[in-house]
Amino acid sequence: MHHLEVSELFAMLVVMLVAAKIVGELAQRIGQPAVLGELIAGILVGRSVLGLVDPHVETIHMLSELGVVILLLAIGLETDLRAMMRVGGTSLAVAVIGVVLPFGLGYAACRLLGLDGLTSIMAGATLTATSVGITARVLSDLGRLRDVEGQIILGAAVIDDILGLVILTVVGGMVGGGSVSVGAVAWTTGAAFGFLAVTLVVGHLVLPWLVRLASRINLPGTPTIFALTLALGLAWLAEKSGSALIIGAFAAGVLLAKTPRAHEIEKGITTLGHFFVPLFFVAVGASVDLSALNPLDSDSRWALVVGGALIVCGVVGKLAAGYAPFWFRGDKRVVGVGMIPRGEVGLIFAQMGLDQGVFDAGMFGGVTLMVIVTTFLAPPLLKLLLTSKNGGRIHEEPEGIEDLVTEA
Amino acid sequence: MHHLEVSELFAMLVVMLVAAKIVGELAQRIGQPAVLGELIAGILVGRSVLGLVDPHVETIHMLSELGVVILLLAIGLETDLRAMMRVGGTSLAVAVIGVVLPFGLGYAACRLLGLDGLTSIMAGATLTATSVGITARVLSDLGRLRDVEGQIILGAAVIDDILGLVILTVVGGMVGGGSVSVGAVAWTTGAAFGFLAVTLVVGHLVLPWLVRLASRINLPGTPTIFALTLALGLAWLAEKSGSALIIGAFAAGVLLAKTPRAHEIEKGITTLGHFFVPLFFVAVGASVDLSALNPLDSDSRWALVVGGALIVCGVVGKLAAGYAPFWFRGDKRVVGVGMIPRGEVGLIFAQMGLDQGVFDAGMFGGVTLMVIVTTFLAPPLLKLLLTSKNGGRIHEEPEGIEDLVTEA
Repeated sequence: MHHLEVSELFAMLVVMLVAAKIVGELAQRIGQPAVLGELIAGILVGRSVLGLVDPHVETIHMLSELGVVILLLAIGLETDLRAMMRVGGTSLAVAVIGVVLPFGLGYAACRLLGLDGLTSIMAGATLTATSVGITARVLSDLGRLRDVEGQIILGAAVIDDILGLVILTVVGGMVGGGSVSVGAVAWTTGAAFGFLAVTLVVGHLVLPWLVRLASRINLPGTPTIFALTLALGLAWLAEKSGSALIIGAFAAGVLLAKTPRAHEIEKGITTLGHFFVPLFFVAVGASVDLSALNPLDSDSRWALVVGGALIVCGVVGKLAAGYAPFWFRGDKRVVGVGMIPRGEVGLIFAQMGLDQGVFDAGMFGGVTLMVIVTTFLAPPLLKLLLTSKNGGRIHEEPEGIEDLVTEA
Repeated sequence: MHHLEVSELFAMLVVMLVAAKIVGELAQRIGQPAVLGELIAGILVGRSVLGLVDPHVETIHMLSELGVVILLLAIGLETDLRAMMRVGGTSLAVAVIGVVLPFGLGYAACRLLGLDGLTSIMAGATLTATSVGITARVLSDLGRLRDVEGQIILGAAVIDDILGLVILTVVGGMVGGGSVSVGAVAWTTGAAFGFLAVTLVVGHLVLPWLVRLASRINLPGTPTIFALTLALGLAWLAEKSGSALIIGAFAAGVLLAKTPRAHEIEKGITTLGHFFVPLFFVAVGASVDLSALNPLDSDSRWALVVGGALIVCGVVGKLAAGYAPFWFRGDKRVVGVGMIPRGEVGLIFAQMGLDQGVFDAGMFGGVTLMVIVTTFLAPPLLKLLLTSKNGGRIHEEPEGIEDLVTEA
């Protein structure tokens, strides 16, 4: 982690926010969601181009993590738990197939390209986890978070994120050279899913009492700070119990969605999100290393070959997952496309592979390319599918998380 | 600087926010401003008592600095520059006397207690700078920021902050063992005051153009983020040109106060402030080291003697400064009391003295005691003076920065 003076941090935040707003606005003007602009803004100000923002600076990293917590809290506040449970089986099918298929395809493709078993497993693993942050933001950019397709994608992305933890445990154990016990896998799986279940049940019982307690505090902004505190607390608890930070933040939002002051909370969290959420997407963009894709370099040519293969496997695998719940009568294409973006999760796997020596520079570049393309492909594709379906429909609720980006 | 995992940071933020809200609410219930509760909350969770929050953790420090920027931006938005200029001479008199008198009294008292010249100068210096953050927050807690007394105090506190930079240069040079050139002092003084003047003049000319540019960005939250970006940018520029971060943030607020969307900006910044501002006050409280005041320790007994002397000099000096503008017909007591709190600025001087070996543990403890007492004395005294003057008057404007704390 790198360090900064306070004034240097301020300068970096200015660069990130100004770039996010300008490129976000340009993206909207050409009919794309603003989040796409924020990711591109990140690439522009990051190490690949201008070198003004280093996402590995401790405080920038922390602020962007606060951004993803606030985003998932806001998404949770927009989520109707009952509706999500009704499509729970559908989400589960999409998530499981969407993990198994891309993994299998990616592994097979890498073996066909002559790579060894461990490298191929690691490459397959990078294809598994949908980035719930990017997916949710795209849906909310388009005002479609509450559509049945939106609920399925969101549910699948959450399950997917938990499965990603399990895979991280298994693959992490394998590249670490140790054996992976069935017990460890079972424990990770149980802890990850168990956390969400326990939190929702216990939270449902305890929350009314907590809300009454907080309502005795007569300081302005208390509902918003209460919600943020709950999200941060559950995120901490989620990580401590072997689940993922963002699952805790999402659970907090789901629990708070039914409380009396949910609307006030949503407004306050949205305002906080205007500052924090773009920092997350700009930081994701800034952590992309385009130099891994220099076409004059032999590693990079290999990266283009591997990357191309991984992109095909990743896109086909997730699209097919959208068709997995054969009983579902909605738009299967939308579900499949919604699962495509990999984002920061894929980059974490790639970095782990590089650090452990499983990936060389070419493989790292290939995975980076796959992450960029899948992340950048989904927003315009989704937009195309959703607006062609019912021409530029205005969603019902102009306030709240959708407000993090107006519709173009 | 110390480091944290993301989840540890979240846990620390939960502790800080919950403590701030609970103790802030309790403070209000016994008729004190919430900021007093937040400072006490900081002492409770900091190293002196529970040890849960370490204000030297890099990200906590950065977040609390963002808090003071947002606070000063909000204060600036509430400031009527013309009104402040009208009482400019009065503010200047209060600021200058409020620096010279406490310094002279503190120096004399320490010499009488048998201390050497350099230590006495350093001790005098710790008495000079009013904490503009604490003063402004107390006034806004009480809804009196726009009274003529409020404007004088605020103006004096800003000038005072600039004078503090000059003193820091001089004393820093002396304890560093070097000689202090008249040129260096003149440069610091010129740069510090010059920045404010140049920013206000240039900003007045350039801002309408910038606002028009920003208004072409059609993303929600843009006015708030524009304001925050301007404050962070000017804070950075202020530090780079030898002035203080908070002067830049304050100047941004003053400039934006007259723009068409000032009201919307004020609402957004207030919401951001609900999260960031308490972090600043809790961090100030958490950095107080009560162990320097253990009565069983001989250093600490000496600390109580020195601290007692410094408290008398500090309080008398600033109170007298309130009476310095003999032509002023308002409440001179309010102005004097408003200048009393020293806060984080005094602690920075004390730490510098300790690091340079000019202060021993006893002196450090004495200065800490002075900072605690002056900081904690001002809010209840001000509240007493202002409410006895016209019994519990409700201020005109319930929204905006005053909203950072409701009136008790």
